[in-house]
Amino acid sequence: MSTTGTPGRDAAWLATALDEARAGLAEGGIPIGAALYGADGALLGRGRNRRVQDGDPSMHAETAAFRAAGRQRSYRGTTMVTTLSPCWYCSGLVRQFGISRVVIGEAGTFRGGHDWLARHGVEIVLLDDADCLDLMRGFVRGNPALWNEDIGEG
Amino acid sequence: MSTTGTPGRDAAWLATALDEARAGLAEGGIPIGAALYGADGALLGRGRNRRVQDGDPSMHAETAAFRAAGRQRSYRGTTMVTTLSPCWYCSGLVRQFGISRVVIGEAGTFRGGHDWLARHGVEIVLLDDADCLDLMRGFVRGNPALWNEDIGEG
Repeated sequence: MSTTGTPGRDAAWLATALDEARAGLAEGGIPIGAALYGADGALLGRGRNRRVQDGDPSMHAETAAFRAAGRQRSYRGTTMVTTLSPCWYCSGLVRQFGISRVVIGEAGTFRGGHDWLARHGVEIVLLDDADCLDLMRGFVRGNPALWNEDIGEG
Repeated sequence: MSTTGTPGRDAAWLATALDEARAGLAEGGIPIGAALYGADGALLGRGRNRRVQDGDPSMHAETAAFRAAGRQRSYRGTTMVTTLSPCWYCSGLVRQFGISRVVIGEAGTFRGGHDWLARHGVEIVLLDDADCLDLMRGFVRGNPALWNEDIGEG
């Protein structure tokens, strides 16, 4: 795991993901948000978990941001910023498409595949952000069945 | 890797996925199809790669079938049937949601994460189907740039 990069920029990018997460909570959804930034720092796409809002289990925050970015020829140099450690589904997305960096708000409520990604050459920045942690901790406590459904836990 | 299961049923299920793949080709899309079957053998969802048709890079065949199945409380006992070995993105989907079996048409044109899934307890059935292989081989030969885009190869 790495903590290199540009801390100020990563924190600003995380704010975009956190805005998405909060918007999801306001809609009655699962509060996880993400954004995909290009190698030049441009925002390519942003999104949030849409299981509840659209009845769509395939739209995790990271896949929603990836989708919003549309078709891209290459993901080299891109950064996926997410409020929560990416699950295996979203970790697989990052690995398959060669997304270079993942900036993670927190991995305290759920720990996905980010160590696996690091072993496969993806730069991982774990910010341990208190706002992300508080948001998700409160949600999981209040909605355990919905949360378990979203991560495939029987 | 396992070749247990019910060969006749798996072949019939693969035909559903192959129908999806051929429909995708007819639309000018990438010819990969998939279907998700329940523990009781009911068809839960079917779909095909929609990169070209919808400009949506997040809709691989397996994710499209998963999406079409809607929200499910559990994927225990379900089978994902796909014309092609699942990429890391789709393998991650299978692992995260606890899909029990994956039936694969072919892994000759592309080999994704199915050995990894087998190591994590997913039953893998590789059918080495000549129709799937011919369909995909012809497509990759004629459309290398599009195919590389779909698997994140620069």
